[in-house]
Amino acid sequence: MQVMGNKRETNDIFHWIAPELALLENALCEALASPVPLIAEIGMHLVKSGGKRLRPSLYLLAAKSGESFEQEKAMPLAAAIELIHMASLVHDDVIDCAQTRRGAATANAKWGNQIAVLTGDHMFARAFSLVSNKGYSEAVGEGLSSLVQGLCAGEILQDSTLYEAGLDTAEYERRIAMKTADFLATCCELGAMVGGASPETCEKLKAYGKAIGMAFQITDDLLDVTGEEKRIGKPAGNDIRQGVVTLPVIRALDTSPDREELREIVTNRAMTDEGVHRAVEIVRASDGVEAARKRAGEYLEEARSALPETLSEEARTAFLEAAAYIGNRDF
Amino acid sequence: MQVMGNKRETNDIFHWIAPELALLENALCEALASPVPLIAEIGMHLVKSGGKRLRPSLYLLAAKSGESFEQEKAMPLAAAIELIHMASLVHDDVIDCAQTRRGAATANAKWGNQIAVLTGDHMFARAFSLVSNKGYSEAVGEGLSSLVQGLCAGEILQDSTLYEAGLDTAEYERRIAMKTADFLATCCELGAMVGGASPETCEKLKAYGKAIGMAFQITDDLLDVTGEEKRIGKPAGNDIRQGVVTLPVIRALDTSPDREELREIVTNRAMTDEGVHRAVEIVRASDGVEAARKRAGEYLEEARSALPETLSEEARTAFLEAAAYIGNRDF
Repeated sequence: MQVMGNKRETNDIFHWIAPELALLENALCEALASPVPLIAEIGMHLVKSGGKRLRPSLYLLAAKSGESFEQEKAMPLAAAIELIHMASLVHDDVIDCAQTRRGAATANAKWGNQIAVLTGDHMFARAFSLVSNKGYSEAVGEGLSSLVQGLCAGEILQDSTLYEAGLDTAEYERRIAMKTADFLATCCELGAMVGGASPETCEKLKAYGKAIGMAFQITDDLLDVTGEEKRIGKPAGNDIRQGVVTLPVIRALDTSPDREELREIVTNRAMTDEGVHRAVEIVRASDGVEAARKRAGEYLEEARSALPETLSEEARTAFLEAAAYIGNRDF
Repeated sequence: MQVMGNKRETNDIFHWIAPELALLENALCEALASPVPLIAEIGMHLVKSGGKRLRPSLYLLAAKSGESFEQEKAMPLAAAIELIHMASLVHDDVIDCAQTRRGAATANAKWGNQIAVLTGDHMFARAFSLVSNKGYSEAVGEGLSSLVQGLCAGEILQDSTLYEAGLDTAEYERRIAMKTADFLATCCELGAMVGGASPETCEKLKAYGKAIGMAFQITDDLLDVTGEEKRIGKPAGNDIRQGVVTLPVIRALDTSPDREELREIVTNRAMTDEGVHRAVEIVRASDGVEAARKRAGEYLEEARSALPETLSEEARTAFLEAAAYIGNRDF
């Protein structure tokens, strides 16, 4: 599934919503303006540090495919969605003591943990304020808050099962659904609602989002094992090092001839660099990589079949391209 | 103003809203229930660790004093307000590496920083979900999110001016307004709105909340200098140690004969225990304590005069008792 040299930026994929993505950058800058200079400074740093804008893109695709899409009405929620994602990354970086993200210094590296925790909180709250008094239905506020709760619950679940080799595939999928796929599902669902889609279409686009979210996270977890450091921006085996047991590892723990050695490494909270390297080697040599790739492919197929029949050709093409982008991702 | 031995629990003060405060505890437990066992466990720990419930109490006082108060309608927002306060304390404890709060282990001490940051995020989001789909006006969501933004902005402002001796009274008051008083103002305003008060009454109760919020924080800052360790639960001079320059210190930096020595201590990021002790001594000997006490008293007077004429005798008594409680607080 993974085609090297076929790296495409989300901006190329989402050319249908290019005008909205341009407006999004402005909306993010405006949203993070503040009379407190430090807040404004951090906000600009985070917006300028970039990101794929995948979540608001999916939301905007779904919204624009609706019959009653109004750009002006749709934009605040797009910004709110990206702010929530940004806030969660700011807190993730505090938690992981990460020094860089996408080549730029993290908020915690630049301003310390105190400011970074508070900045994340401020951004979460800003997201909710963006969607109040905008005439959205109550389901929008409910959707946004459920999304954050799910995201946190998924991370808490993950953190409470670190270094555990007993996780099965179902538990793994439940965890990644909570921490990633439900977020993407909600983006598509909220977009469909704001675009005026029928309840049936909302459900189908939500199912599309959920399925590509699952594929997205499985691919992400796969890249941690198969990726080259200079491409994925972190050393291979980073998840293993942090105690996060992912699908290819779970599979290898089941089928590899070296499964006992692998189990010993991944459950060791004091594992060495050599240990991580050896674990990656064992997983790469197992059928775990192929199993994960296959599972991601199944989810992408599920995503394609979930697309409503009623979509315009333009919208369908964009959704299919988004699915292809997830499948071809090698960074 | 400070009467020793006159310590009263908020529950005694707020007997008029005792039924609602009992319901609040249930609502908090329900709100923090979760299919993820660890989230439920942490939630129960935090609810059982108690707290003064001052913010939801002010909200409920304002709501119950309205003409169209409906208990069932008012409760979710009361719980949301307390959840936001609890979430901010969970994050404060991470930031301060605090091990205990109100005699119980903090979330970070018990479960680590990762889980504590995520738990705080989860609680913020839960607060917003509690007020969606409950038929509140859009102003409620807006009020809640402004409140969190202000709270964070106030803390960020404080953190960006640590160990600075140049802060003047106006800057100090701006900071405590953002981090404390605006929160209490919004509690009163939202309560008035939910209780069906006129816009004029909403404004007056908001002004009342703002003024007692200022008095509350000034008293808190004063207790850091004048309080006994066993009563306030932390060593005197804790703010000074953390670089937070408060009103009595600002005043002492202006008027004390030992102001140069004081300036040297409070601007020293590596101050010793002896330094903190000496700084407290200098502030206690200055007129900073009396100046802060006077300022708190002025705000309490302002709070009393802000109360709308239209309040029932029962409501007025409760609001006056709340102000007296703030004035007499010695813990």
